[in-house]
Amino acid sequence: MPIKMYDLAGAEPDRRFSPYCWRTKMALAHKQLEVETIPWRFSDKPLIAFANWERVPVIVDQGKPVVDSWAIATYLEGAYPARPSLFGGGAGLGLARFHNAWADTVLNPALSRFAMLDAYNHLSPADQPYFRRSRLERLGVSLEEYCKDREGRLPAFQQLLEPLRQTLAAQPYLGGEAPLYPDYIVFGSFMWSRCISPFRLLDETDPVNAWRERLLDAFGGLARNAPGYW
Amino acid sequence: MPIKMYDLAGAEPDRRFSPYCWRTKMALAHKQLEVETIPWRFSDKPLIAFANWERVPVIVDQGKPVVDSWAIATYLEGAYPARPSLFGGGAGLGLARFHNAWADTVLNPALSRFAMLDAYNHLSPADQPYFRRSRLERLGVSLEEYCKDREGRLPAFQQLLEPLRQTLAAQPYLGGEAPLYPDYIVFGSFMWSRCISPFRLLDETDPVNAWRERLLDAFGGLARNAPGYW
Repeated sequence: MPIKMYDLAGAEPDRRFSPYCWRTKMALAHKQLEVETIPWRFSDKPLIAFANWERVPVIVDQGKPVVDSWAIATYLEGAYPARPSLFGGGAGLGLARFHNAWADTVLNPALSRFAMLDAYNHLSPADQPYFRRSRLERLGVSLEEYCKDREGRLPAFQQLLEPLRQTLAAQPYLGGEAPLYPDYIVFGSFMWSRCISPFRLLDETDPVNAWRERLLDAFGGLARNAPGYW
Repeated sequence: MPIKMYDLAGAEPDRRFSPYCWRTKMALAHKQLEVETIPWRFSDKPLIAFANWERVPVIVDQGKPVVDSWAIATYLEGAYPARPSLFGGGAGLGLARFHNAWADTVLNPALSRFAMLDAYNHLSPADQPYFRRSRLERLGVSLEEYCKDREGRLPAFQQLLEPLRQTLAAQPYLGGEAPLYPDYIVFGSFMWSRCISPFRLLDETDPVNAWRERLLDAFGGLARNAPGYW
């Protein structure tokens, strides 16, 4: 029985843009686990109420719900130890928390100022009022104000990627010679942007972009074949 | 024969404040290797010319010079595989590069705006003119200008530590349950500040401070016993 996964979708059911869901989809592919994704919208909260949770990703593995992308990754690592490791051992799991925290507290907030209005525009009409209202509460400004002057803010965003760039100039993946879960954590953020926004965030010559291209091709082009822009 | 290590010193020979040298000293202690440190000043470049290098740390192990803190850590890991591991395996080594790059490109530049003038004031008189001149060239402003209004800049600095804070709120060390080389990378930066500056950068209640205190106590108080302020 394939694992079921509730995956944030836009108005088009194949537009799957959540950075956290991308972490999980790449992790499932890395573990060579079959998955059946179920498109989910913000207005579908009742659909995942069985898991006592209000956000995606949520997976159901043999009847057991697991919520939260980090918890899902560590669950998969423990439940499928014979499959390719997501962390390369206990030290890797410990160290990966910093990549997770960096993506959550530095990268995603910065990306949101480039992607959030585009995300809104791809939502199903049923989700748009909720999204606009909740973001206004959280940000204190309109989506239009929050995402204005992207060109002007691009150099500062690219500067923020410097630790990523320096790492990926020295080795092909954050995991070293091959990708590990931290690669999928950070890649998920770039998939968020790719899936809903035509605005290019990376120069062709940036080592971060070369790494992104490699991960777009991973697992038979799982990410590249998803509807997206760049 | 103990490993020899050239270690940046101030006017007082026991004032050893280089963040990169602290990475190496903690790594050597983790590997349970005996070390004889040699105080070194910027004006002592001829002393390490044998290694074809101009900065410290430089170590000499059984006649073999190894330079650069990252290269020294990977050298020690390879040369002493039976000693406690600094990386916990290949995945850990790959993942640790991101911590290294974050400390080099985010943390240390931010710290320098708090510590650089204090560092200058602790240098030997022979080093001070070189330090002032080279920093003016690099920064474009005087040390006094560069380090002014520390109180005002403290909240932004503490905000920068958020990925570190979130990680250390979830587990005692960057390496997980026990410290690994990435802990020493980041801790080295706080030792830089501690050794030359009375200015407190962390609140007592900050999980980052609790982690710092644990590492100050590690290896019989190696770091806590070094001349320093807080």
